[in-house]
Amino acid sequence: MKPTIHDVARTAGVSISTVSRVMNAPETVTEQKRLRVQEAIDLLQYQPNGFARGLIYKKSGTLGVMIPDIENPYYAGLLRGMQDEAVRLGHSLMICNTDRDKDRLIAYIQSFYEKQVDGIVFASDALHLEYFEEMQRYRMPIVLASTNAPDYDIPSIDIDDEQAAFEAVSYLLDSGHSHIGMISFPPADTISGWPRMEGFRRALRERGMPAEEAPVAYAAHRYEDAYTVTAELLASNPMLTAIFAASDEFAMGAISYLRDHGRRVPEDLSVVGFDDIRMAGMYIPKLTTIAQPVYEIGVRAVRKLHELAIGGHVETLREKLPHKLVVRESSRRL
Amino acid sequence: MKPTIHDVARTAGVSISTVSRVMNAPETVTEQKRLRVQEAIDLLQYQPNGFARGLIYKKSGTLGVMIPDIENPYYAGLLRGMQDEAVRLGHSLMICNTDRDKDRLIAYIQSFYEKQVDGIVFASDALHLEYFEEMQRYRMPIVLASTNAPDYDIPSIDIDDEQAAFEAVSYLLDSGHSHIGMISFPPADTISGWPRMEGFRRALRERGMPAEEAPVAYAAHRYEDAYTVTAELLASNPMLTAIFAASDEFAMGAISYLRDHGRRVPEDLSVVGFDDIRMAGMYIPKLTTIAQPVYEIGVRAVRKLHELAIGGHVETLREKLPHKLVVRESSRRL
Repeated sequence: MKPTIHDVARTAGVSISTVSRVMNAPETVTEQKRLRVQEAIDLLQYQPNGFARGLIYKKSGTLGVMIPDIENPYYAGLLRGMQDEAVRLGHSLMICNTDRDKDRLIAYIQSFYEKQVDGIVFASDALHLEYFEEMQRYRMPIVLASTNAPDYDIPSIDIDDEQAAFEAVSYLLDSGHSHIGMISFPPADTISGWPRMEGFRRALRERGMPAEEAPVAYAAHRYEDAYTVTAELLASNPMLTAIFAASDEFAMGAISYLRDHGRRVPEDLSVVGFDDIRMAGMYIPKLTTIAQPVYEIGVRAVRKLHELAIGGHVETLREKLPHKLVVRESSRRL
Repeated sequence: MKPTIHDVARTAGVSISTVSRVMNAPETVTEQKRLRVQEAIDLLQYQPNGFARGLIYKKSGTLGVMIPDIENPYYAGLLRGMQDEAVRLGHSLMICNTDRDKDRLIAYIQSFYEKQVDGIVFASDALHLEYFEEMQRYRMPIVLASTNAPDYDIPSIDIDDEQAAFEAVSYLLDSGHSHIGMISFPPADTISGWPRMEGFRRALRERGMPAEEAPVAYAAHRYEDAYTVTAELLASNPMLTAIFAASDEFAMGAISYLRDHGRRVPEDLSVVGFDDIRMAGMYIPKLTTIAQPVYEIGVRAVRKLHELAIGGHVETLREKLPHKLVVRESSRRL
């Protein structure tokens, strides 16, 4: 039979309320009694339930993860990496989908605090001041995955988005394309938006091409948005021979639009994506794209959070992992 | 300033340890004192932290969700439905990825118990006796989503897989196909495997065609498996004009294999999938498939779990939601 709080009290020779106080308000119990209770707990292998255990050990064994959109396949690889590393380190993951909704996000931070998670991985969204302050209020360790916060000292793991976009567009230029349009996240998106657009422009600028007025269409986060804006991009720029899409979902949206309107990829237009989600290699045509090491980002984010939660600091504050251009079927040399 | 346990004790006119006992072992406190403490808590709007609160209210506001494979896009729609309904009901979701690993699954059940989740949604996998017993041991409310357990009285929401497969194959037969192969989950899979294969066979049988020896290739859960077995299926059955795939991922694997080997879909072969995941409408060609109401399954599963956790029982034990054949581009009339 499982030992109860009564057994612990009897073994330690103290009252039940003393055991309870050791668990809830240890500072109100003398050290001598506290040790006796702790010994009894160890001896009996008493397992208080989760809530009580959190109170004793101050570690819940759970890490919280916040992602913006569970239907976006980008997160699947990231979560897989986090999950595998969490299992290795003996943690469980509590994954919450924020929908980029401010109120929900703040409610989740409070909920994480109440469940006494050991820390939070905040994935892929810009860390607004408000969120940061809320997390600071609860003093919860936090690590950023696939995003970064240059203004605060928060550990982060991501890639160099500007450089990656620069390489993707340089590849198109090297392949003979000179009329290149971009489907970008909104410029206000300081993580995936602005830096990738800057990389696109730098590549053009370095070849002496007009960069500021280069054709850019903005899509929110989804395939359907990209499908729609591809129409506008092509209507205003009928000469385009290539499109650089800021995500693989955008690339698929663009390719579907082109294909539904009688244009072949890559014969008529080349399309390059970004991310290398699982679907990129399953799509027809298979996507040329920038491979982000999403699995590895997930693994390192959890490892870093573990390091931070245990030791109070991390060795490297900001890590940039290497990306890679993967040339498949959706692009061709002119 | 936030009230502390000390303020509660002072207001109730009891000792800290009494407040603590009310939270941890209320049966050791007289009813009179218990009420005084509860009144003080209400008056001060004292918020014990998550662990302690669980001990008082016996509800954590959190629902646990177990899914087999977070990288499988099928779960995205399901989780989206669960999430939206959980938000509506004021719950948060704790999502765990089991990888169909028995030890991990059992560890998660224990972890859910320790965190005192109000209940578990177990999604899409067969509920083995061992899991069931483990959940029973902790007396946690449980609801099955996209799966069912005919042997136990556990609430479930899914579709009629046999009938849906029957309709998909009947559609191919009606379109003039008489050489139809299937890519199936392993027959030991009592949820997505055996019933869908039975529906395939029944459709053939009803037309007086040989059903037992009909060409079936087995794939595990992924695109890559389906890609591989499509080669075998075609090698042994060169006459095939159509393939019924037991999932959209399998359909994409088959289409990719065909396309990589110079066969066009639907011109040379028709392919019909199952699930209608988000990608089905984004793929090229867009998939003809059986649409499962995954979002609605997710919504109802959480609603049912809420009903069960609050009231101790559900009105309808087993629900089958309607499916629908969606004809898109990957199939054609012969």
